[in-house]
Amino acid sequence: MAHHVLAILNQPSAEAAPHDADAAPFAFVDPSTPQLSVLDLGATRGDGIFETISVGSGRAQALEHHLRRFAGSAEKLELPAPDLDVWRAAILAAIAELQPGAESWVKTVLTRGVEGDGRPTGWVYATHTSDFTRVRTEGIRVVTLDRGYRHDVESTSPWLLAGAKTLSYAINRAVLREAKRRDADDVVFVSSDGFVLEGPTSTVIYRVGDRVLTPGTGLGILDGTTQANVFRYAESLGLSTGFELATPDQLRGADAAWLVSSVRLAAPVRQLDGQPVAVDAEFTAGLNEYLLGLRD
Amino acid sequence: MAHHVLAILNQPSAEAAPHDADAAPFAFVDPSTPQLSVLDLGATRGDGIFETISVGSGRAQALEHHLRRFAGSAEKLELPAPDLDVWRAAILAAIAELQPGAESWVKTVLTRGVEGDGRPTGWVYATHTSDFTRVRTEGIRVVTLDRGYRHDVESTSPWLLAGAKTLSYAINRAVLREAKRRDADDVVFVSSDGFVLEGPTSTVIYRVGDRVLTPGTGLGILDGTTQANVFRYAESLGLSTGFELATPDQLRGADAAWLVSSVRLAAPVRQLDGQPVAVDAEFTAGLNEYLLGLRD
Repeated sequence: MAHHVLAILNQPSAEAAPHDADAAPFAFVDPSTPQLSVLDLGATRGDGIFETISVGSGRAQALEHHLRRFAGSAEKLELPAPDLDVWRAAILAAIAELQPGAESWVKTVLTRGVEGDGRPTGWVYATHTSDFTRVRTEGIRVVTLDRGYRHDVESTSPWLLAGAKTLSYAINRAVLREAKRRDADDVVFVSSDGFVLEGPTSTVIYRVGDRVLTPGTGLGILDGTTQANVFRYAESLGLSTGFELATPDQLRGADAAWLVSSVRLAAPVRQLDGQPVAVDAEFTAGLNEYLLGLRD
Repeated sequence: MAHHVLAILNQPSAEAAPHDADAAPFAFVDPSTPQLSVLDLGATRGDGIFETISVGSGRAQALEHHLRRFAGSAEKLELPAPDLDVWRAAILAAIAELQPGAESWVKTVLTRGVEGDGRPTGWVYATHTSDFTRVRTEGIRVVTLDRGYRHDVESTSPWLLAGAKTLSYAINRAVLREAKRRDADDVVFVSSDGFVLEGPTSTVIYRVGDRVLTPGTGLGILDGTTQANVFRYAESLGLSTGFELATPDQLRGADAAWLVSSVRLAAPVRQLDGQPVAVDAEFTAGLNEYLLGLRD
């Protein structure tokens, strides 16, 4: 039992000899030693994809949704389709190796591999989670930042990879530094034509009266795995749910707003661009209890 | 003497003990063995920067310009400022270790390192170059593709890191696949408001009469190291040079156009979006001879 574990997947090359099929599909290695070539296109070009999956009580949360999105990202990047049975087995094996803890997460990564090699690189890494209790209750201060793209860029310019979860995340890290400079904790991206999109690592949810809403896919944003569960919870309370575009002003005027993600779960937005946003403490507590309970 | 060499830089941590200064500033390692952690933010988030420097006759081309741009990219990403004396020494040492060849290149990479470690990762990799003689003479077929950003995004939204040479290059690879689908060899990015920007790994140069032009910096594009030398060559012939915005139509109607970059040098554009573009074979040959000659 370890506090973090790493499994490297045995990826077939394009011209794999038939007997390669007999090789173990993945192997555990020491995560504290180097495993990657500096020539790997994941490292030199951010040319790969990933998923981060929450684990509670030894169970991977929304596993099939994550695997489906992983395969979708691979398709957008024209990477070899991941064998989801192998990835699922590696994820479950990694969780089993991990010392049981209250909350953990598993990351899956698939890169295009070493240039010219024709063999992708894949790994599964699992470790324990920081404690997010405080942000889940007290909420976060958020700033809106221009993402530079129009809201329809996913359909007009698919080569921009909007909507794929790629390793090219330098911008998603830069906006968090900008948020810190503005004395905030997180970011909501806004399209160049003024629509609310998503957070750098989260989906935006907002409530207007008895309607729980999210901008929805097709806007160059990710199909949120946690968002789907938030809608299930809202519907169980008799609220309606839907996909609706919003401006930052509409988000600020909502009856409540959250950034939701696999590991941090639902963080209520308590401030947007320096202005207070209503926090619904009771709904938030119930929602996070529901999301945590899904792991049991 | 090797056909490729790798030097890993000894990066000080934020809280480095003073005696760390006695450690060798870099060390050569076997480039065919893994050197990178899967937890390195360069690999998991494309959170780092790079330069690719051409080498001829054992000399690094435009070395000081590349180092200056490397430091500028680090600043844009708020990475620790690279010690350029150490990087220069590592680059020169790598070149000295490399088996002499007609043309080679050196890549410098600086990442934010393993998350939470506070110590960046740096390496210098050198190897031989493919033969670009054919594209330098016959030219390339290019398609224009929307980059999604307005031309002024570098000044309005610096968190988008436009103008920094980051490891988050998945889009720059995706557009080349799109070019291939359109039966072309390379790409010219166009801003969402219709201006010619740059190639995914090159600067656009075009000639109108006796004026040699390029879109120039401040448009979220890189300050081309080869472009500066192209202007020197043009001026030596009595041509004037300048920075001027162009539309794809203006580029197509130019008297000649090139994509220029450190390693491939000047590739004449012979087709843009399926339409022929004039090729000035004599100027191109003289230009590439000049650029190659700078390495002597």
